[in-house]
Amino acid sequence: MTAHQQRLADLRARIADTAEVGSLLVSDLTNVRWLSGFTGSSGVLALDGTAVVLFTDGRYGVQAAQQTSTCGLDVDIRVAPTAAGLHDLLADWCRTAVGPVGFESEHVSVALHQRWTAAANVQFAAMRGLVEAGRRTKHHTEVERIEEACGIADRALADVAPRITAGVTEVEVRNMLEVRMRELGAAGPSYETIVAAGPLHAALPHHRPAQRRLEEGDTLIIDVGALVDGYHSDMTRTFVIGEPSEEQLDAYALVLESQRAGLDAVGPGVPARHIDAACRSVIERAGRGDWFSHGTGHGVGLLIHEEPYLNRVSEAVLQPGDVVTVEPGVYREGFGGVRIEDLVLVTADGSRRLTASPKDSPCLPSPPTT
Amino acid sequence: MTAHQQRLADLRARIADTAEVGSLLVSDLTNVRWLSGFTGSSGVLALDGTAVVLFTDGRYGVQAAQQTSTCGLDVDIRVAPTAAGLHDLLADWCRTAVGPVGFESEHVSVALHQRWTAAANVQFAAMRGLVEAGRRTKHHTEVERIEEACGIADRALADVAPRITAGVTEVEVRNMLEVRMRELGAAGPSYETIVAAGPLHAALPHHRPAQRRLEEGDTLIIDVGALVDGYHSDMTRTFVIGEPSEEQLDAYALVLESQRAGLDAVGPGVPARHIDAACRSVIERAGRGDWFSHGTGHGVGLLIHEEPYLNRVSEAVLQPGDVVTVEPGVYREGFGGVRIEDLVLVTADGSRRLTASPKDSPCLPSPPTT
Repeated sequence: MTAHQQRLADLRARIADTAEVGSLLVSDLTNVRWLSGFTGSSGVLALDGTAVVLFTDGRYGVQAAQQTSTCGLDVDIRVAPTAAGLHDLLADWCRTAVGPVGFESEHVSVALHQRWTAAANVQFAAMRGLVEAGRRTKHHTEVERIEEACGIADRALADVAPRITAGVTEVEVRNMLEVRMRELGAAGPSYETIVAAGPLHAALPHHRPAQRRLEEGDTLIIDVGALVDGYHSDMTRTFVIGEPSEEQLDAYALVLESQRAGLDAVGPGVPARHIDAACRSVIERAGRGDWFSHGTGHGVGLLIHEEPYLNRVSEAVLQPGDVVTVEPGVYREGFGGVRIEDLVLVTADGSRRLTASPKDSPCLPSPPTT
Repeated sequence: MTAHQQRLADLRARIADTAEVGSLLVSDLTNVRWLSGFTGSSGVLALDGTAVVLFTDGRYGVQAAQQTSTCGLDVDIRVAPTAAGLHDLLADWCRTAVGPVGFESEHVSVALHQRWTAAANVQFAAMRGLVEAGRRTKHHTEVERIEEACGIADRALADVAPRITAGVTEVEVRNMLEVRMRELGAAGPSYETIVAAGPLHAALPHHRPAQRRLEEGDTLIIDVGALVDGYHSDMTRTFVIGEPSEEQLDAYALVLESQRAGLDAVGPGVPARHIDAACRSVIERAGRGDWFSHGTGHGVGLLIHEEPYLNRVSEAVLQPGDVVTVEPGVYREGFGGVRIEDLVLVTADGSRRLTASPKDSPCLPSPPTT
């Protein structure tokens, strides 16, 4: 049985378990890709107990047949002349489907749901997270792709770091990282690389790189990941340009202690909010709780942000096969910011770190002497 | 009045015109960006007759205040500790809002709508396209950014084309284009650059670049755009590696004639489906109608695909300020494919082409002699 055949079989078993629906429409494109291998930008997968049908439009008919077949699947491809026409074909299918017809209520808009119910005289049932429940647990072939992406980002940062000095712009650092990741085999960056430096930009957790030139004394946050065959990596390192001040070293040591406490807490059966608490308590004890303005982490896979989320209100419990970030940080206008982030795999007996860039010190490596 | 103040005023006027709602939640992030300047990945804009409130989470509080202020707006920023917590703050606001509270039914999931209605005891009203109606018409400052993006893609293709020869891989061509666009000032590619060559890959309208090496006799489709300050460009050119065959020259001439017929038809007051018909009839007359497997074009702006769509079933009518693609193509396994695409602005008295790469011939420029 191929990985994709297994995913469909598992999904059918989950559908049967719910006993709520006779068939299911999968319209979230990430879920469609994970189930069928199809990577087009227009498609809905419909399945019942016996058949799998993929609805797409004319741009993707040949590609859909190739990709599903490569995954070992026997999928009935139905091609509409336009992306909008896809829903007419789909409505036809729903009219004869085994009802109720489940749909992904977190991914179907109110307007689309209205359109479906108007077109097909069948009962629809709102379902949540049926595919995500399977997608969350990474198969070893998925972990391998994520590890490859992590390795590319590690290597790119190692290659670019010696070229980061006062006078270089944030945009230039981003370009060097993204070009190097491409050269190393990435399909692209995992997300828009964050390069945030100095008292203002580094104080914004998700700053976009600007034309500002790095200056001596800046804190510099670099949040970088690679994309490999649809799978993402995610990592953050913080540096100081030139000689770090006492205050910068203290903040760096605090965040590093916090991040290590979070990493140490990761393991199967651990509530996700405990990881957040492990990180946050270190920073709160230092009186800097209000400098840590975001959650501690999130799952990573075909999406850069997915279940499980690691924050104060998360109800998730970590399980083997979860791939999650641990990324506490402190930010303050005038000071700048420090964030340290690694990606880890939850294993049967603990965790394994997937990103490997050094983090003992915020000092940049010396430029090559030529 | 700044451009953003004008957009909010126009939106308020449209809301008043509908007379259906007392306030509006804007949750589509592209619409949020267009209205407020805020570019974060988590945010909902709420407005009534007097106030504008932006709900976001801790990652984006400072950034949201900076960006809305830069746009000349007086926005009340409310920051939740987590992305999920944002909806609790929002529900609080809805409880005291002037009802009914409109929401964007094409962008709000069934699950989120259920959550809002459970949390706030107020009447919600499904609204469609209120913001998009304004977004569709590009302000001259928006056209300038799109033109800059077009110019970068034109220049990148001109610079890279002489290096495209048999033996180079699709991925290498993509990398050269994307690196060059970055060097020329793009924030990134407008979408994943398509480089599709040979009898199989070029037959897929949206093929992803692979490790396949270009061979003599291949048709080669390059679909490339740049991103500038959030605005996209979009252009396709087709080449033949080496000496084109009679069949390739015929197909190229056919698509070029089709595309020019489409461009000639673009103007204010023209139904979008007439542009599609103008392109399609040329290809159908040549007996190749079933080789043209997709629509003729789409709007481009902060999204790479947006209103108006140019296809057989479109009900849109072109109007000044629309920026649309015209991109007929023919595809067949064994032959490969040809697509030619330009981006055009609809003006008061016709149209103006924004992409400028040469398209008279499918022959590549000679490599530089060194």
